[in-house]
Amino acid sequence: MTGRTARRRVLRVSLPGGAAARADFLAAEEPLGIRIGGEAFTLTMRTPGDDIDLAAGFLVSEGIIASAADLIAIRICSGGDCDHDDHNATGNIADITLSPDAMVTPRHRRNFLTTSACGVCGKASIDELAVRSRYDLSADQAAVSPDLLAQLPGRLRDAQRVFDRTGGLHAAGLFSADGTPLAVREDVGRHNAVDKVVGWALREGRLPLAGCVLLVSGRASFELVQKAVMAGIPVLAAVSAPSSLAAELAAESGLTLVGFLRGGSMNVYTGAQRLGL
Amino acid sequence: MTGRTARRRVLRVSLPGGAAARADFLAAEEPLGIRIGGEAFTLTMRTPGDDIDLAAGFLVSEGIIASAADLIAIRICSGGDCDHDDHNATGNIADITLSPDAMVTPRHRRNFLTTSACGVCGKASIDELAVRSRYDLSADQAAVSPDLLAQLPGRLRDAQRVFDRTGGLHAAGLFSADGTPLAVREDVGRHNAVDKVVGWALREGRLPLAGCVLLVSGRASFELVQKAVMAGIPVLAAVSAPSSLAAELAAESGLTLVGFLRGGSMNVYTGAQRLGL
Repeated sequence: MTGRTARRRVLRVSLPGGAAARADFLAAEEPLGIRIGGEAFTLTMRTPGDDIDLAAGFLVSEGIIASAADLIAIRICSGGDCDHDDHNATGNIADITLSPDAMVTPRHRRNFLTTSACGVCGKASIDELAVRSRYDLSADQAAVSPDLLAQLPGRLRDAQRVFDRTGGLHAAGLFSADGTPLAVREDVGRHNAVDKVVGWALREGRLPLAGCVLLVSGRASFELVQKAVMAGIPVLAAVSAPSSLAAELAAESGLTLVGFLRGGSMNVYTGAQRLGL
Repeated sequence: MTGRTARRRVLRVSLPGGAAARADFLAAEEPLGIRIGGEAFTLTMRTPGDDIDLAAGFLVSEGIIASAADLIAIRICSGGDCDHDDHNATGNIADITLSPDAMVTPRHRRNFLTTSACGVCGKASIDELAVRSRYDLSADQAAVSPDLLAQLPGRLRDAQRVFDRTGGLHAAGLFSADGTPLAVREDVGRHNAVDKVVGWALREGRLPLAGCVLLVSGRASFELVQKAVMAGIPVLAAVSAPSSLAAELAAESGLTLVGFLRGGSMNVYTGAQRLGL
């Protein structure tokens, strides 16, 4: 495994006129290939670290697995211990063996090459894009006060400060209903940060994450809402804006979606009843 | 084609105690399926608008086409005019016909399903991931002063203000060496915003974009550096941080990479000679 940050020489320019060389730390970005049963499944550009959780969380998000029992093994290839030719491998392949009960179907490949283009037409789009969740969020009676929610970005930043000296990482934090941080992960890709959190929860036997709040440091896309729903998380809060499709999927799924959570205010797009509103 | 923003009712909460319903505008996010020769090639979640440019720019970024002559047609399916079953299609498929000279090879599918997992091992990663550019950036004698660069974020924001009332869009702006804005595009996905700019340039017969500066409103990933290199853009500036792999690819490609461009200061990671430093 390589590092989460990379040191690099940089010229710092401050106008007018100043320029000085100094060392800077960049967020590490490297490819992780995910193989299932020896076959290439996808490739993600990620910050190294928690790669097993990343791969496992990705499989949960895609609806391929739902518990640790669905996984026989996840091996991160490194050095000479994998069965391919390049012995310079430095941990950039996750080799996954699924239990016979967990299956990859053509449907799971929908986000990738074999997507039927017709599947993304017009009104059919959400139905075709969304992976069906095993969990019914509308039954989740989680209650989180707006006052508690307002404190979470500060707690996420406190946890982030420890790691992020690059300014280049997205964070995802999982909190219990009383605001206790359960897992905080960072990555150059926001979807990866969420997958790492979900993979941690799978490993800990905590899925579905009933009663929990997922906070993301940036925007909330359709993809992030889908990941929350697939992990059974009833509340997704974002420091920045959601997209239209994120709000639509949240409404359909019974997820509470909060955006622009900063400085004691927030926008509640769906599921306001969980905030007592 | 659907809109770039979607109106949605939202509960605005301001602590302590205030909550009021109001209308909010969200950045529209919808899937665009890209088909080449009738076959599904990829799917991107994007903000509708400039979809032909988006599809064309994507093909440039992937090294499949280099000029408008390589394209016989790009058709955005809508209504009943496409040859599939769902007549609710609302413009979410780009149907591309390439000239016989432009070819999709297995290599072009590297970011997708058929990526050989071995191709992402260790030291081989950049070589395998990077699409080879037709243009030699190191020969580009572009000169851009730090003072000029410092003015570009303001110009990008001015152009953005016209469109973005959602807070949810990434922007990409192409500027000439004297700081004139040539094209500004926005999207929920930063890679899409850049592809829309590059597609515009293709259509205008301006590739390679020698002497130009591409400014992005967020972070600079490997993928964005690759898109700049493939379009022959010698200078990429980002308001926020680059990743490690972005800086590595920039160095290898002869691209000038600037990050944290804000408030009269910036970090120059590679190619400082173009800034006279």
